[in-house]
Amino acid sequence: MSTNKNISIGLFGFGCVGQGLYDVLSNSQGLKASIDKICVKSKNKDRKVDMSFFTWDKNVILSEKKHDVIVELIDNADEAFAIVKEAIENGVSVVTANKKMLAENFETLYKLQEEHKVALIYEGSAGGSIPIIRNLEEYYDNELLTGIKGILNGTCNYILTRMELENKDYSEILKDAQAVGFAESDPWLDVAGFDTKYKLVLLTVHSFGIILKPDQVLNLGINTVSYDDILYAKRHGYRIKLIARAEKINDKVRVFVLPHFVPKDTDLYNTLYEYNAVEVEGAFSCKQTFTGKGAGAHPTGSAVLSDISALTYDYKYAYKKLKSLKNKFNGSYEALHLLDKDFTLKLYIRFKDKEELKELDIVDIEEEYKSAATNYIIANVKFNSLFNIYNKPENKLFVCVVE
Amino acid sequence: MSTNKNISIGLFGFGCVGQGLYDVLSNSQGLKASIDKICVKSKNKDRKVDMSFFTWDKNVILSEKKHDVIVELIDNADEAFAIVKEAIENGVSVVTANKKMLAENFETLYKLQEEHKVALIYEGSAGGSIPIIRNLEEYYDNELLTGIKGILNGTCNYILTRMELENKDYSEILKDAQAVGFAESDPWLDVAGFDTKYKLVLLTVHSFGIILKPDQVLNLGINTVSYDDILYAKRHGYRIKLIARAEKINDKVRVFVLPHFVPKDTDLYNTLYEYNAVEVEGAFSCKQTFTGKGAGAHPTGSAVLSDISALTYDYKYAYKKLKSLKNKFNGSYEALHLLDKDFTLKLYIRFKDKEELKELDIVDIEEEYKSAATNYIIANVKFNSLFNIYNKPENKLFVCVVE
Repeated sequence: MSTNKNISIGLFGFGCVGQGLYDVLSNSQGLKASIDKICVKSKNKDRKVDMSFFTWDKNVILSEKKHDVIVELIDNADEAFAIVKEAIENGVSVVTANKKMLAENFETLYKLQEEHKVALIYEGSAGGSIPIIRNLEEYYDNELLTGIKGILNGTCNYILTRMELENKDYSEILKDAQAVGFAESDPWLDVAGFDTKYKLVLLTVHSFGIILKPDQVLNLGINTVSYDDILYAKRHGYRIKLIARAEKINDKVRVFVLPHFVPKDTDLYNTLYEYNAVEVEGAFSCKQTFTGKGAGAHPTGSAVLSDISALTYDYKYAYKKLKSLKNKFNGSYEALHLLDKDFTLKLYIRFKDKEELKELDIVDIEEEYKSAATNYIIANVKFNSLFNIYNKPENKLFVCVVE
Repeated sequence: MSTNKNISIGLFGFGCVGQGLYDVLSNSQGLKASIDKICVKSKNKDRKVDMSFFTWDKNVILSEKKHDVIVELIDNADEAFAIVKEAIENGVSVVTANKKMLAENFETLYKLQEEHKVALIYEGSAGGSIPIIRNLEEYYDNELLTGIKGILNGTCNYILTRMELENKDYSEILKDAQAVGFAESDPWLDVAGFDTKYKLVLLTVHSFGIILKPDQVLNLGINTVSYDDILYAKRHGYRIKLIARAEKINDKVRVFVLPHFVPKDTDLYNTLYEYNAVEVEGAFSCKQTFTGKGAGAHPTGSAVLSDISALTYDYKYAYKKLKSLKNKFNGSYEALHLLDKDFTLKLYIRFKDKEELKELDIVDIEEEYKSAATNYIIANVKFNSLFNIYNKPENKLFVCVVE
């Protein structure tokens, strides 16, 4: 692709991010790119762009191969995968922001890119406007990274911030967040930590070269948090944040998503509302933090535009760390043996009935608190046993990492 | 340059950053690069590398043209310029971290790069380990940036942090900082804000495409700060930070370095000791903040290594914004007409004698405080008149931007 010609974009999806991209592109200086066709589902919505730009048939964009870039911004991960796969097989570069689709199909998508020698880039898929993937790829490409840690879901952080600042309980703030568009009508993927996990799976590839499948990675969310927990945190000088962590310890990685008590005067503590933050820790560069809006039409649209712009100079992720690890393991991408699940975490666990704790492998209890209103323990727990309560909507325990 | 061959580095300077680079490179995975020759000044220092690597004659590195990259990490800006110029003229790519040399010679160096079609990259020159220049170049290349604001000097921030946290006066902490290596024996360039300004000049090129000469840009530093000022800030919920700012207002830019009162609960407030922080504000991406260690052998060495690695895939700054602005002004890089100096700032000014204020063009005084120990005013002052006290070691006023 040359910088001198006008780039033709075929866009899938015209929801929040799609419209954001449209705005950002319309106001961009210097980038010669235009959205020439938009494929959407609904025929009956009012659109702010002339109807001649729209199609309801994906083949109009995919089969005609008239576009230089396919930008995929739809909700459904399976449909998105089919679109992206076909585009790559047609030799067309793709920009996407669909973390679920990427995390679930990473190995396949990686191999497709290599085979068809096209670019698949996805800065908008993690950290919203924060250029985290590009920095991991290019700036930390030869750095010995030791850990990455972040707030990656705007919905959870928005809810936790408002609970604390307004002294209100979870369900009340969730309802409000849904009303103002900061939470989906079905918030499960966000509040239970799945969205955060998909993003973490992507960051783990770019930080350590390790491809994990989403169901290999533990996530517990904030769907069981109560105002009591917020109050406990506040009294102890903490804020509760849903944290994604990937750490390298002796050649293995610990990767998980859990609520954490985050201490005062840290960047993560001060990351409020829909803002995201990512800390990157390197052996030599020390700790770097990137913060910015983690969601929203324009911030994510900016990230997508930046990817489109990168394609004008034939940018591709180099996947250096993935390639060097693959060489080490004779061509295999199977990384489960590199995932360390055999360690203990110090946890705050709030419960109603001791019976609820029976599935956890508790090594020792350091503190125990009982009252009519709430019970909690501070205990060292085998990490592996947290999988026993993972992805169970009936789980009522609130689990939070104490450091 | 190909990724498959071993990159030969000719290094100038083996001080703090040079040795840091050596450590980081020795521990890097994947990058096939080696420092093959090091040019230094002193013949009598103990070196941690075998003496066969050293030379005292710059021509051994420059004239023989055996190296793929010249890395320039010496102190003296004039000598550095001569080295970098000769290397570029020889068609060799250069990595440098010398902000003074770059800021003072920017237009010449830019033209030399274009003429000889080689790369001159310098991530280590601003923000230490923070990848700010690369992000401005690549990630914000098509974004309408509205402002950039940051803490760019580790020495000043270290002194201000310790003054506040230890309730001590400037001279005492400065002495201490010199003893532990966080301030130079002649600290003027750091504490008077020149170092910050050189970095700001570079960021202004990459944010807005505007080349300013260092003496066109105002800097007042922290060399006149007293514990009274720190106390005033504390009581009002602020911290004093030396802030570099470049803002676009109606096609013109306001660019300056001044101490600022920074409010609580902001990223800049929470940036302590030798850490740096840069806020980038875009019309669509909103506010992004990058924080990390602003100085030190290994953090800056990491930034330099990352530049060397970028050269393996023929990376060059694209200077998109500079080129588009040049087109607009018929090929001229003269940017003084774009620099807005005609505005007022609300300032806190501490003084001994009212006589000291006579050089300032004060529009109105909002508050006035007098005591035996200290006097200050809060006043709106014409920005332009601050040049009357700029770069005058005899100036005793402490000037700090309010809000």
